[in-house]
Amino acid sequence: MSLMKELVKGKVKTVYAVDDIERVMIMYHDKVTAGNGEKEDTPHDKGRISCEISTLLFKEFEKQGIKTHYIDTIGYTMLCRKVQIIPIEFVVRNIAAGSIVRQTTIKEGRRFDYPLVEYYLKDDSKNDPLLTEDRVDIMGYGEDIGPINMMCLKINSVLIDIFSRIGLDLVDFKVEFGYSSDGKILLADELSPDGMRLWKMNTRESMDKDLFRNDNGDIVDAYSQILTDLNRLVLSTNND
Amino acid sequence: MSLMKELVKGKVKTVYAVDDIERVMIMYHDKVTAGNGEKEDTPHDKGRISCEISTLLFKEFEKQGIKTHYIDTIGYTMLCRKVQIIPIEFVVRNIAAGSIVRQTTIKEGRRFDYPLVEYYLKDDSKNDPLLTEDRVDIMGYGEDIGPINMMCLKINSVLIDIFSRIGLDLVDFKVEFGYSSDGKILLADELSPDGMRLWKMNTRESMDKDLFRNDNGDIVDAYSQILTDLNRLVLSTNND
Repeated sequence: MSLMKELVKGKVKTVYAVDDIERVMIMYHDKVTAGNGEKEDTPHDKGRISCEISTLLFKEFEKQGIKTHYIDTIGYTMLCRKVQIIPIEFVVRNIAAGSIVRQTTIKEGRRFDYPLVEYYLKDDSKNDPLLTEDRVDIMGYGEDIGPINMMCLKINSVLIDIFSRIGLDLVDFKVEFGYSSDGKILLADELSPDGMRLWKMNTRESMDKDLFRNDNGDIVDAYSQILTDLNRLVLSTNND
Repeated sequence: MSLMKELVKGKVKTVYAVDDIERVMIMYHDKVTAGNGEKEDTPHDKGRISCEISTLLFKEFEKQGIKTHYIDTIGYTMLCRKVQIIPIEFVVRNIAAGSIVRQTTIKEGRRFDYPLVEYYLKDDSKNDPLLTEDRVDIMGYGEDIGPINMMCLKINSVLIDIFSRIGLDLVDFKVEFGYSSDGKILLADELSPDGMRLWKMNTRESMDKDLFRNDNGDIVDAYSQILTDLNRLVLSTNND
């Protein structure tokens, strides 16, 4: 077998072509970056753990009727349907933290009365700027905004339910979507604590990439704990 | 008479208290800045010309039923109703230019199918970040957004009409609003080519602060030309 052809090299994952042109392999590396790649580290086992958390969540979404690109996982590699990625990052916020605090007068920790769905241009060279709904519309994605917002809110409900059962508040998370070859919108990319903020209920202790951003603890320890708790939760739910 | 008390010192204007606490004086300085104050110059007569353009436009708005803070003008100083400024800059866009081009995939010069009303936090220390409607709502200005959007669109119609008659395309402009002591929302601040993009029809030559931003010409010449043309227009309209 020839070496796999690299399709996209991301900051912490690489997408490879496989023999079936409708599918791709997504490899999760032992790597973490922050500040648009300005800071990075290569913690052992981080790729596998992120991949397993993503896998568990994608399976849960499929059970709940949310269409994703996920097919199967082997170790730290996911087999997925190939999609044409929409170049917008969708961020859902339940509690104020991060850029929304830096760029407004809103105080960190404020719980919103309704979940916010925000749009960011997926372009590292421009530093992923915030987009308004009008800008998304003019960029040509106006018709997709409604269905994607609905998917974001459903994903949010599922994630809030899951994480609340393991003692975590879902502060916010980032998701990406893509079009399948038959024109369907699928949840794509990954869903790990790299792209979420998770706070221990009451103490507000971070259990996500903020530990790395702020030099505040070991992300592999935190992600492992989350994976263990999620696996236990899934096991107990399946036994219900 | 004692020296006037300075209330707010802006980058190119200063607001002073007057004996009547319901009123303020706004002095336009011979100054221009760009890049959040990083670049500046002090061109002779710029204050008076900007003040006269603002005056002419505020008078036109009042005629068209748009409520403003404007009362009277003497030289380069405006007497205005005192308002509590809403800390949001409202930008109306008809054609793509400036930050919307830098922060999206939208190309410069694209004419929008509908005028965009955008919101920016008025905070130089944060570099005036773009706000979404949700962020404005959470910051506590949700109820004002509807009425202010309507005012912005009406101001836009009036300005497009005026500038088209003197051969200029209104690309975009920034306005600010404030609450009067009796709780009304008034158009405040100024309306000069400092806060607008005006392109000569067909050639797209700038007749606004971009001349200074891009070292591309003399703003006092351009603003003087606009003032002359506007005065001629008003004179001819009054004689109709």
